[in-house]
Amino acid sequence: MHINENFLKLKAGYLFPEIARRVNAWTEANPNKTERLIRCGIGDVTEPLPEAVRNAMHAAVDEQGVAETFHGYGPEQGYAFLRDAIVENQFVGLNISADEIFISDGSKCDTGNILDIFGQGNKIAITDPVYPVYVDTNVMAGNTGEADENGAYEGLVYLPCNAENGFAPAIPDEKVDLIYLCYPNNPTGTTATREQLEAWVAYARANDSIILYDAAYEAFVQDSSVPRSIFEIEGAHECAIEFRSFSKNGGFTGVRCAYTIIPKNLSVTASTGEDVTLHSLWNRRHATKFNGASYPVQRGAAAVFSDEGKAQVSALIEHYMGNAALLRKACQDCGLTVFGGENAPYVWVQCPEGTDSWGMFDKMLEEAQVVITPGSGFGAAGEGYFRISSFNTRENVEEVCRRLAAI
Amino acid sequence: MHINENFLKLKAGYLFPEIARRVNAWTEANPNKTERLIRCGIGDVTEPLPEAVRNAMHAAVDEQGVAETFHGYGPEQGYAFLRDAIVENQFVGLNISADEIFISDGSKCDTGNILDIFGQGNKIAITDPVYPVYVDTNVMAGNTGEADENGAYEGLVYLPCNAENGFAPAIPDEKVDLIYLCYPNNPTGTTATREQLEAWVAYARANDSIILYDAAYEAFVQDSSVPRSIFEIEGAHECAIEFRSFSKNGGFTGVRCAYTIIPKNLSVTASTGEDVTLHSLWNRRHATKFNGASYPVQRGAAAVFSDEGKAQVSALIEHYMGNAALLRKACQDCGLTVFGGENAPYVWVQCPEGTDSWGMFDKMLEEAQVVITPGSGFGAAGEGYFRISSFNTRENVEEVCRRLAAI
Repeated sequence: MHINENFLKLKAGYLFPEIARRVNAWTEANPNKTERLIRCGIGDVTEPLPEAVRNAMHAAVDEQGVAETFHGYGPEQGYAFLRDAIVENQFVGLNISADEIFISDGSKCDTGNILDIFGQGNKIAITDPVYPVYVDTNVMAGNTGEADENGAYEGLVYLPCNAENGFAPAIPDEKVDLIYLCYPNNPTGTTATREQLEAWVAYARANDSIILYDAAYEAFVQDSSVPRSIFEIEGAHECAIEFRSFSKNGGFTGVRCAYTIIPKNLSVTASTGEDVTLHSLWNRRHATKFNGASYPVQRGAAAVFSDEGKAQVSALIEHYMGNAALLRKACQDCGLTVFGGENAPYVWVQCPEGTDSWGMFDKMLEEAQVVITPGSGFGAAGEGYFRISSFNTRENVEEVCRRLAAI
Repeated sequence: MHINENFLKLKAGYLFPEIARRVNAWTEANPNKTERLIRCGIGDVTEPLPEAVRNAMHAAVDEQGVAETFHGYGPEQGYAFLRDAIVENQFVGLNISADEIFISDGSKCDTGNILDIFGQGNKIAITDPVYPVYVDTNVMAGNTGEADENGAYEGLVYLPCNAENGFAPAIPDEKVDLIYLCYPNNPTGTTATREQLEAWVAYARANDSIILYDAAYEAFVQDSSVPRSIFEIEGAHECAIEFRSFSKNGGFTGVRCAYTIIPKNLSVTASTGEDVTLHSLWNRRHATKFNGASYPVQRGAAAVFSDEGKAQVSALIEHYMGNAALLRKACQDCGLTVFGGENAPYVWVQCPEGTDSWGMFDKMLEEAQVVITPGSGFGAAGEGYFRISSFNTRENVEEVCRRLAAI
């Protein structure tokens, strides 16, 4: 009996348990201040699910109560009503068809499961700092060696993103097979320009690489010159897979719906010389190891694209981006240098000289009772930064701003 | 760039596409008879979702509309309200605790994804006939060689189940590492006795094997001497993982909710000599590649265990089992030999001498306009049998019985 011993290489989830440990220790030492605590750490939405979504879910639940409208197993790839709505609302003019959209129950699943269709021996590039799921799923899949004392895994190609390079990772000077890009970025809240993405697509096509493009925060883009999809870039249909989610636009973190776009002309040559489309591999994976997203959830997701749904989602985005603007300004008013937060719900703040990420975490907790996320938790290049999330009520954000002014 | 070339070993999904092809050909040739067609092939429920479930889902959707009761990301392992309800209602006296229950969006996902925690080089045993997902996911994971002309994969240990052995697969005379057992069985509708399961547990413990026990049809067991869980067997907590689903009892095939039970004292020795619990590996897999089942869906699932929910689920089971009894009798009255259908929603019927599975499929389609599933589609040992599903309306089942009497 063999277990997957790659799991044993995983470092214990360090970041969020350590945050919880420090918050608990502070709470125990300061029982009378506990109610002052404001959490700006986690990337979870706080505002109610849009009414249009709830109405659609209610109607779908009612349908399930009548034999004539009852929905059992649906298509594993998702219902046509949702795939069509996505194409008509999100990919106009981008040459994406409904059968290139695979509906799922979440982008965390999709970005992890996608590795099933890739074999052993691929060279993987990730940006640093990065969403930890990309790293951990590659460790589990055996695409790395052991971690060093800084938590960096042998065999991964880390692409540092910092103030010096404007958070634009350098194109690797070696050949890599898979490249994870996330724009607007979690955790830095920064975006990529069209020219930067064109350079990535050119690199991928020249090196037979695949770009795994995570666009979970696409809805937060305010600047019309910032690309929202990798498929806005010519040639991307031959080298990229895109992940999208209803979590952060529609507020679906607890309801669960996402999708993956794989163009049908994205193919790889097998060792037999045969050209194999990644679409056919993912379709087989999806149909064999997944049984479709919940029907009422898919109805709710489709309602995001109704007129009411669009207006309600816009209001949510405006709310969170208003929070981001307030947080940016408050940090700047303290003399801190800030990045992101203009086309993304995260503000990435440089720690004052002489203070590291965890030092800043402790200072914010002790002096302002505000929980932030230390940048080093997202990778070595995140050291010297911290992340403030704008997913919060306006009231809490205004209070955080007042406290920042006071420290 | 390497793709997972194990996918290329997969035979094109043969069974259901071939059924669709033959039904379409018949429909085209017989346009005036098309409305007579009754489908008894697929294993999908037909009756409405219980009212208690719908009420709970409506309430949960309403909660999502208010900031104070809004639920974002939940625990990846599932909410305590559901894990507790499962333990209190399904595992009384079986020494299973709530933190050994992992909620998911479906058993198809769980039975496929479980292979993530096992390494390469394990010997896999499956019964024949079998639910094709067990086979296909092992092919994808690289646990097999190529398929032969009968569709049997090199490296898998096939355990034939047929009338001669009473559908009780023989204990292997070699050491295998993983054994898939499904009781009540899909496709044969037969069950295992306590003594048979005791023999499997004894084998697994003697050989350091793990039993992957699929109990998706547990709710259909009518005979109180038939075990409903592998954990009724002493020693199973050291050698078994169980999969359960709300699909077939609560009618959740379109709503999506299931769970996996991994006892915490189920451990495997790694190559380092270290004892590793499968619970810790699955917990890590689940937390990294899954983000919890939908909150309204989990609320609906918990309502299955309310007083109203229990009564409504009982009525559903009674309905489908009533169908099964009618189908059994109708087949017997035609002189056919039947198995299953007494503690399971599937009736497994021996083809008359001289007719093979596909021959019987064609005969039923042409003479009775009833779509059944040919047994050979589930594996070589299914040849000579066909499956009739009792997932249907009573009206359709009664009509099927009348037609069977007429041919």
